[in-house]
Amino acid sequence: MDDTVTVNRTARRKAKADFRWEGVEMHPYKEDERALYKTITRQVLFSDPNMAGELRYFEVAPGGFSTLERHEHMHGVLILRGRGQCLVGDEVKQLETRDLVTVPPMTWHQLRATTEEPLGFLCMVNAERDKPQLPTPQDVERLKQNPAIAAFLDGKPA
Amino acid sequence: MDDTVTVNRTARRKAKADFRWEGVEMHPYKEDERALYKTITRQVLFSDPNMAGELRYFEVAPGGFSTLERHEHMHGVLILRGRGQCLVGDEVKQLETRDLVTVPPMTWHQLRATTEEPLGFLCMVNAERDKPQLPTPQDVERLKQNPAIAAFLDGKPA
Repeated sequence: MDDTVTVNRTARRKAKADFRWEGVEMHPYKEDERALYKTITRQVLFSDPNMAGELRYFEVAPGGFSTLERHEHMHGVLILRGRGQCLVGDEVKQLETRDLVTVPPMTWHQLRATTEEPLGFLCMVNAERDKPQLPTPQDVERLKQNPAIAAFLDGKPA
Repeated sequence: MDDTVTVNRTARRKAKADFRWEGVEMHPYKEDERALYKTITRQVLFSDPNMAGELRYFEVAPGGFSTLERHEHMHGVLILRGRGQCLVGDEVKQLETRDLVTVPPMTWHQLRATTEEPLGFLCMVNAERDKPQLPTPQDVERLKQNPAIAAFLDGKPA
């Protein structure tokens, strides 16, 4: 987790072209070097000592994917741009713009940009949260016993 | 505040036409009968005992406005549909789709749909939060000493 939190209480921050925002830095997503992820960026839209939640915008380039992980804290996700697929638990689902994704506690999850356009999504999390857990090779093997999950993890979307 | 909280952990809830969502109820916004507001609806997108924040979608019909209020808890707002104006503290700002609005603690605020289209916005709040305070006539009088705020509150946008 990135420990640098920028408190920005500017009343209005304007949207810029290409899903960027005034006064919001864009970071490459790199929480853990062991994590499997590809071509994803992160912008923190709301983070403040007086807010119990944080709202971030992630964007996955075509063919990219978020980290396959699980943790005690939940994710509330809203697709803001493009389309793709998600794995949540043992379900692989198609995602269209504005779809909602709920990631319950301790549930393996990953999002993938499966088309020619970027997949951008808002993600609400608790400001105080546990560190994500990464799958062991055994975890991945177990997940892949489900053919739909195997195709998803191998980047061969149905 | 509405005390009925629906916990929905369905992995994916699909977006429907006209900014509605599968499995999400739409409510008229009515927190307090004394509050000044007009033609605004509320949909709770994420609310769960394991989440410290809530994410709601509000939609204001053309000419409508949210309650003029203040409270200790903060709002993190992202405009999802249309455009309008906001009052935050002593600032009146134009809003376009995807702009961000931060409402600090104890700061008077209101959003208005000032065009012919609805103004829809996401609003992140703390799950545990204080009750909004409404302005006294004296508060409104003081706010209106600023001509830009007077025009905003009278629904005569610049």
